[in-house]
Amino acid sequence: MTHAAGPHDPGPDAGLLSPVRAGAPAERETTEKAWLQAMLDAESALARAQARLGTVPARAAEAITRAARADRFDPRALAVRARESANPVVALVAELTRAVAAEDAAAAEYVHRGSTSQDILDTGTMLMCRRAVAPVLADADRIVTALGRLAGRHRDTAMAGRTLALHAVPTTFGLKAAGWRELVADARDRLARAHAGLPVSLGGAAGTLAGYLEHARAGAGEDLPDDYAALLAAAFAEETGLAGQRLPWHSLRTPVADLAAALAFTAAALGKFAVDVQVLVRTEIAEAGEPAVAGRGSSSAMPHKRNPVLSTLVRSAALQVPALTAGLTQCLITEDERSAGVWHAEWLLLREAVRLTGGAVWTAAELAEGLTPDPERMRANLALTASAVVTERLAAVLTPHLGRARARELLSEAARTADAKGLDLGRVLGAEPDVRAHLTARRLTSLLDPTAYTGAADALVNRSLTVPAPPASPQE
Amino acid sequence: MTHAAGPHDPGPDAGLLSPVRAGAPAERETTEKAWLQAMLDAESALARAQARLGTVPARAAEAITRAARADRFDPRALAVRARESANPVVALVAELTRAVAAEDAAAAEYVHRGSTSQDILDTGTMLMCRRAVAPVLADADRIVTALGRLAGRHRDTAMAGRTLALHAVPTTFGLKAAGWRELVADARDRLARAHAGLPVSLGGAAGTLAGYLEHARAGAGEDLPDDYAALLAAAFAEETGLAGQRLPWHSLRTPVADLAAALAFTAAALGKFAVDVQVLVRTEIAEAGEPAVAGRGSSSAMPHKRNPVLSTLVRSAALQVPALTAGLTQCLITEDERSAGVWHAEWLLLREAVRLTGGAVWTAAELAEGLTPDPERMRANLALTASAVVTERLAAVLTPHLGRARARELLSEAARTADAKGLDLGRVLGAEPDVRAHLTARRLTSLLDPTAYTGAADALVNRSLTVPAPPASPQE
Amino acid sequence: MTHAAGPHDPGPDAGLLSPVRAGAPAERETTEKAWLQAMLDAESALARAQARLGTVPARAAEAITRAARADRFDPRALAVRARESANPVVALVAELTRAVAAEDAAAAEYVHRGSTSQDILDTGTMLMCRRAVAPVLADADRIVTALGRLAGRHRDTAMAGRTLALHAVPTTFGLKAAGWRELVADARDRLARAHAGLPVSLGGAAGTLAGYLEHARAGAGEDLPDDYAALLAAAFAEETGLAGQRLPWHSLRTPVADLAAALAFTAAALGKFAVDVQVLVRTEIAEAGEPAVAGRGSSSAMPHKRNPVLSTLVRSAALQVPALTAGLTQCLITEDERSAGVWHAEWLLLREAVRLTGGAVWTAAELAEGLTPDPERMRANLALTASAVVTERLAAVLTPHLGRARARELLSEAARTADAKGLDLGRVLGAEPDVRAHLTARRLTSLLDPTAYTGAADALVNRSLTVPAPPASPQE
Amino acid sequence: MTHAAGPHDPGPDAGLLSPVRAGAPAERETTEKAWLQAMLDAESALARAQARLGTVPARAAEAITRAARADRFDPRALAVRARESANPVVALVAELTRAVAAEDAAAAEYVHRGSTSQDILDTGTMLMCRRAVAPVLADADRIVTALGRLAGRHRDTAMAGRTLALHAVPTTFGLKAAGWRELVADARDRLARAHAGLPVSLGGAAGTLAGYLEHARAGAGEDLPDDYAALLAAAFAEETGLAGQRLPWHSLRTPVADLAAALAFTAAALGKFAVDVQVLVRTEIAEAGEPAVAGRGSSSAMPHKRNPVLSTLVRSAALQVPALTAGLTQCLITEDERSAGVWHAEWLLLREAVRLTGGAVWTAAELAEGLTPDPERMRANLALTASAVVTERLAAVLTPHLGRARARELLSEAARTADAKGLDLGRVLGAEPDVRAHLTARRLTSLLDPTAYTGAADALVNRSLTVPAPPASPQE
Repeated sequence: MTHAAGPHDPGPDAGLLSPVRAGAPAERETTEKAWLQAMLDAESALARAQARLGTVPARAAEAITRAARADRFDPRALAVRARESANPVVALVAELTRAVAAEDAAAAEYVHRGSTSQDILDTGTMLMCRRAVAPVLADADRIVTALGRLAGRHRDTAMAGRTLALHAVPTTFGLKAAGWRELVADARDRLARAHAGLPVSLGGAAGTLAGYLEHARAGAGEDLPDDYAALLAAAFAEETGLAGQRLPWHSLRTPVADLAAALAFTAAALGKFAVDVQVLVRTEIAEAGEPAVAGRGSSSAMPHKRNPVLSTLVRSAALQVPALTAGLTQCLITEDERSAGVWHAEWLLLREAVRLTGGAVWTAAELAEGLTPDPERMRANLALTASAVVTERLAAVLTPHLGRARARELLSEAARTADAKGLDLGRVLGAEPDVRAHLTARRLTSLLDPTAYTGAADALVNRSLTVPAPPASPQE
Repeated sequence: MTHAAGPHDPGPDAGLLSPVRAGAPAERETTEKAWLQAMLDAESALARAQARLGTVPARAAEAITRAARADRFDPRALAVRARESANPVVALVAELTRAVAAEDAAAAEYVHRGSTSQDILDTGTMLMCRRAVAPVLADADRIVTALGRLAGRHRDTAMAGRTLALHAVPTTFGLKAAGWRELVADARDRLARAHAGLPVSLGGAAGTLAGYLEHARAGAGEDLPDDYAALLAAAFAEETGLAGQRLPWHSLRTPVADLAAALAFTAAALGKFAVDVQVLVRTEIAEAGEPAVAGRGSSSAMPHKRNPVLSTLVRSAALQVPALTAGLTQCLITEDERSAGVWHAEWLLLREAVRLTGGAVWTAAELAEGLTPDPERMRANLALTASAVVTERLAAVLTPHLGRARARELLSEAARTADAKGLDLGRVLGAEPDVRAHLTARRLTSLLDPTAYTGAADALVNRSLTVPAPPASPQE
Repeated sequence: MTHAAGPHDPGPDAGLLSPVRAGAPAERETTEKAWLQAMLDAESALARAQARLGTVPARAAEAITRAARADRFDPRALAVRARESANPVVALVAELTRAVAAEDAAAAEYVHRGSTSQDILDTGTMLMCRRAVAPVLADADRIVTALGRLAGRHRDTAMAGRTLALHAVPTTFGLKAAGWRELVADARDRLARAHAGLPVSLGGAAGTLAGYLEHARAGAGEDLPDDYAALLAAAFAEETGLAGQRLPWHSLRTPVADLAAALAFTAAALGKFAVDVQVLVRTEIAEAGEPAVAGRGSSSAMPHKRNPVLSTLVRSAALQVPALTAGLTQCLITEDERSAGVWHAEWLLLREAVRLTGGAVWTAAELAEGLTPDPERMRANLALTASAVVTERLAAVLTPHLGRARARELLSEAARTADAKGLDLGRVLGAEPDVRAHLTARRLTSLLDPTAYTGAADALVNRSLTVPAPPASPQE
Repeated sequence: MTHAAGPHDPGPDAGLLSPVRAGAPAERETTEKAWLQAMLDAESALARAQARLGTVPARAAEAITRAARADRFDPRALAVRARESANPVVALVAELTRAVAAEDAAAAEYVHRGSTSQDILDTGTMLMCRRAVAPVLADADRIVTALGRLAGRHRDTAMAGRTLALHAVPTTFGLKAAGWRELVADARDRLARAHAGLPVSLGGAAGTLAGYLEHARAGAGEDLPDDYAALLAAAFAEETGLAGQRLPWHSLRTPVADLAAALAFTAAALGKFAVDVQVLVRTEIAEAGEPAVAGRGSSSAMPHKRNPVLSTLVRSAALQVPALTAGLTQCLITEDERSAGVWHAEWLLLREAVRLTGGAVWTAAELAEGLTPDPERMRANLALTASAVVTERLAAVLTPHLGRARARELLSEAARTADAKGLDLGRVLGAEPDVRAHLTARRLTSLLDPTAYTGAADALVNRSLTVPAPPASPQE
């Protein structure tokens, strides 16, 4: 009766609200059809695993595998029927059974044998994530490579280091790019680790695998090997290509939490890259531009603008994913052998987190590969504070001569004077007896050159680009 | 080139991952098509508003209104093109202009006149929310009515009050239902307030409405009324049916934050209802059942189970929505006249929050209307602690006679004895000289009746059901 | 045994990790001592309320009130003992009883009469929030006033409107300040509403008030008025100064959720103000400065810097508070008559949210009162794009003559030419036959003046400053 | 002047609002004094590192080390002064310099040489976390051991497996405990990994180490080794005992994000343990009790209750920590070389997350070591559904004989009949011709014994307890 309103057509999931993932490889692997296929793959892998152990006829496993094609099923009908059991697997199994029976009635008896909804849904979700994250890792590699190239090329490109919104001391664009690269490499590492660990889920109704065992025993009788449950889980992992499980994890959600943490890290790491780019493209700063593509970045109102759309898209994902994954972390707190609602809260949050992150990495790869720094502009901006960015250096040089307090006071005074009178800091300092006593005019000029005060930036870049990252998880 | 992979078909958005909203009225109003239509409605309302003020020809406004039909546009193409401008409006305007031009070339000149993407997207989003939340309010009313009925009917149905997982003192099912009702009424109130305040968005490129004014002036010349901008905003509000705005709010996100807070409250309030129901349906407790519908709640593995699927669906939404809206609240922190990414992070989070909440309210209405409490079982469970649930009462009665400390000690001792020896608490107490000195056996028996110790439960229920709620926002 | 380590001295809570609130008025009201005092105030208000109704001797209520002074109690001892009951009230009541007994043994019998821990803790928390939020509202008023002054004074100060990190079209600093003001006024409004509604909590062991009734009846016998429970709740509200409750709300957490939402809104609204200020103070932009105070903003490394420390502190709170309150919203999902853990998760989150928000408002008031905009610099920056910020205007003016497409194309072309050749856009346009045909040189010059293209900015500022805000909650 | 209100005494941080950590070892290491000491340790380690490289006199390093004692400094004064620079290090350095000068004026010149606030604050924070997490790992080991013991002891203790709030099929308490153990072991592993990786932070004003280099050069001249910066960072790591850094990480917040993720996982994993315990202690279920300690769990209102306070405290932390760490993950999105506010948002969130998690682990250890399962009660509850928990088994056994559909239908029918007529399921089934044809009465009785249907539970427990966990991060 409440259904009298009827299951209307829900329309497509085209990414209109999330352009960051529209067309991304991860999107392709996270559609409802893809999820459905992954669950069907779990069903058929289960049948094949049972067939390998002789508890399901090989012919039945083959028939099930043939029938398990997502395009045969109607996602909307399944979604609506999912309301009757709080998950879509019950209806999916009924439909799959029907489809198998149409070809081979005997085989239909073996669909979902001994299984439970959560085994199929969890395994399907892990499969979906495995497929969706693979291209994300590849795109992350593209970013690491592109940023490494930028870092190497601009090893000596001096620019203002900015702290608390203000010019602080000089740095190099190379070091900045190396920092972004390091962060993305960290993300890639964490994501790869989570990806490699995605396991099958096999527990049966309450995590004891009793249903699988009983069905097997009912068929095979006393011939069943003692460790049938372990063998079945291992065969299931092999058939799916997923990692094995240690224990059934219906309510031990480590795999989901691990992946969630890696996704949040990845998206937010790219967010750092994006907000940095957005500072650099500001009209007044203009030290970098996003890759120019005809028509991109145009505004509906202002013909002259070229908006930084790639960093905008990346940042939009960076803000969403940690919110989504915070929900997933909370879902670790789940009661009993299987939860009434906590598990169900994971599906959407995880899917969105995967595809938004996937979109962000894909978009950021394009940004990293096409980012155009402007060294001249960087140099010009560095001059804006009239040498104030090197007062730290002068303080260091004068301290042995004047003591720290006096050096600091002299420099603050000089900076104030230069600022108030609109004079060059070098001229003000050059007129200071305490400075002249210790520094030649030439030495002073050289010390005042901001591009010469980049510290260990080049060494840091070199080390960052050449020394392989330590394993993210040091063995203790 | 990265697009070489090509915009594959993303498939439907059928709710497979969110069965809680599959078929809900709010879902219908939050599809991509619905959002697209709402943005098109914003475009045509803008043209009509301009026509009312004489700055766009009436005929053009009519042509635009006729062309602004979502079924003419391809969401996937728009989503992919949205990557070029970080929002779908630029491409949508181009397509709409083409569609209008096909019918009336002159009218096409007036599409999106003076406007900016965010005006259309924000107004469209508010329209979508307005349409989607309306049925949610109606479903919330159903819950309030149904729970009020339950509260009235079970005003005197005693049951165990449970605190920190244990039986504490008796309460009534009527008071429990009245509490749920109060919370849902609070939610309904907050949601209605946010709903009523959803405004149009009209700011132009940077919130000054300059483009609207300049176009109008270019046409109307000096005849333009001084307060044209205000008149236009008012007419726009009337044409859309939305509330007016005080200031352009491109980066002042009060309307979104208000709605987000109301949605989170609503979903989480229903979560309280859901987890309470789940306690009551537990096998050992069994004090209530979800509405029985043939086939519902069946398990893929266990023929005997009737899972509490409605509360499970509701709880799944209750866990997700606050996570989503936490992201929206963060989006208040948005830079400049329009943000590069923060605004863009809102769209998906808000849409999901609306439709998940809508699904939760719709599902909870069915739950509230069909919930079946079991008074006999409540009474039986109340007896489980063998009168321990009334020790508070005995303490109160004995305190004037024995002093608080002694009364408490005597009762603790008696409870321990009864527990250890498996005796009835009444018998143990009846044997206590300190008790016998002050209470007759009959009085003791009457005091030990848990159903007689429900305090002000009935008065609280009566008041809650009859006194109208104070306005949620007391005038100071 | 695990306690063998012993309750070491935990040290002070000086705000070292949260300088944003170090010294803020809200901090004073949210110390552990202040919370303790508020809970003691709840105990004594309860006794007085009972005395007013004749169920506790007036003399006992007076003795309890005299004894209820936080400085008599040891927070550390209470905290450690709180582990035995999962809340500090059990131990506090024991200590308070002892303190009262030391003065008046008979009065001690009436401490916490009929009550339960949560009544005291919740009422105390509401009292603490009431006291802590009051000065926050006053500081919010200071911000509204200061920003209103800035908005009025800079009604005509043109500056670049920035969207997606780039100059878009001109706006005014007045409109920018009016926007901040509007947002803070919204926050103040929402906070005031939540503040006014903070209620007492009175439910007894499981929300039925049975203990209060039974104790009263044991004393007063049949003389007890029928509506004693309601009278007691009303008297309790009067004695505390808090609002009344509709129903006991041990597990109906509307008051906490409402306050949490208002705090998150407030902190995040100030975050918008802060990030905008940080854009303006950037070295390259330099359109505003934080209030100059000797020694403030100095860096440990760089003598020349004057860091924007106020906006930094405000932003730090803006990022934390929504995270904290997201946790509070989740706490609406609480089981039974009183939860085993969900309620307990609220205390710290709420306290930190209150005092961080209080610190942010207090800090932002200083920022708003001392912010120094630089109109000359704004004008200079407006010139940076060589008139590109008015291309929207030219498009509007030329559209009636050339049609939209041609006008747009001509302007894009001219912008590109000016950019590539380093020419002034005015000169390039002045050479265009299509322009010359419709605009005189003088008219063109006037149209190219960015300070003359601020749309309805002044009208919007006027309206925003003069029209009183509509009540935040429109009556439907 | 806003300070006119004056820095009142903020009072202690005794844990009154967070009893879960009152007295926990992690609390001791996370007080403000402890943080202060950790920052002072960073200052002195820096001086010693510089002394090892010959760029600071050894005698100065010694003097600094001697002076760097937290009890000499006033946290409140530092907190209030921290408002002037948005962090406490500027004031701390001034005070430390004064303290060193009092003993050795020359040495005072070398305090904080070449350094910047963030190097000291970040290194100090990492030191604090290193010290605070160490006992957390030890307590986590206690939990793993205790749960392992429970799992082994109750390998064969059958109990109801509960899914979606209802009895599903049998499981064992051993498997349940093994699951908790696995989850805590996962948490311990993730926490240990993050703990081992906590690095020093050394970047200087903008991450180039220029200040360190320049000061060294000003002293040592051309004798400075080329890789001085790298040597200094390595010596700093050795002096602190922290891990090295790859790059300065002022705005590359991997270490904080990694620790945050591990803390959230740990707290939430314990939350799963806690909510499971709370189901088991429910009055109606009563399958386990928290460790009995005199006086613990008593209620202020009800003498008979023994509240599950340990699980309540643990759950309270489990709900808070993920909210706090969600804020920390967002802080990865931080602009420039050092952020104006994002970094500052980390301090409180991280400290609270560490000490709440520490308190939760410490509390959960006591819970795990003292948890008292009740096998008899488990067996009694298992009987509640009158064999319905083994219908899955019967379905498996009958399927080869009757086909799946018929078996399922027969069992559903029998369950309904038994339920409706209040009969034993065994009797109903025993009367079914289709059952009698295939199962002897004896076989049927044996199949209906729920304690005999625990699947692979024992094998899973054995494997879980004996096979060492794979490294959490499989090498790809």
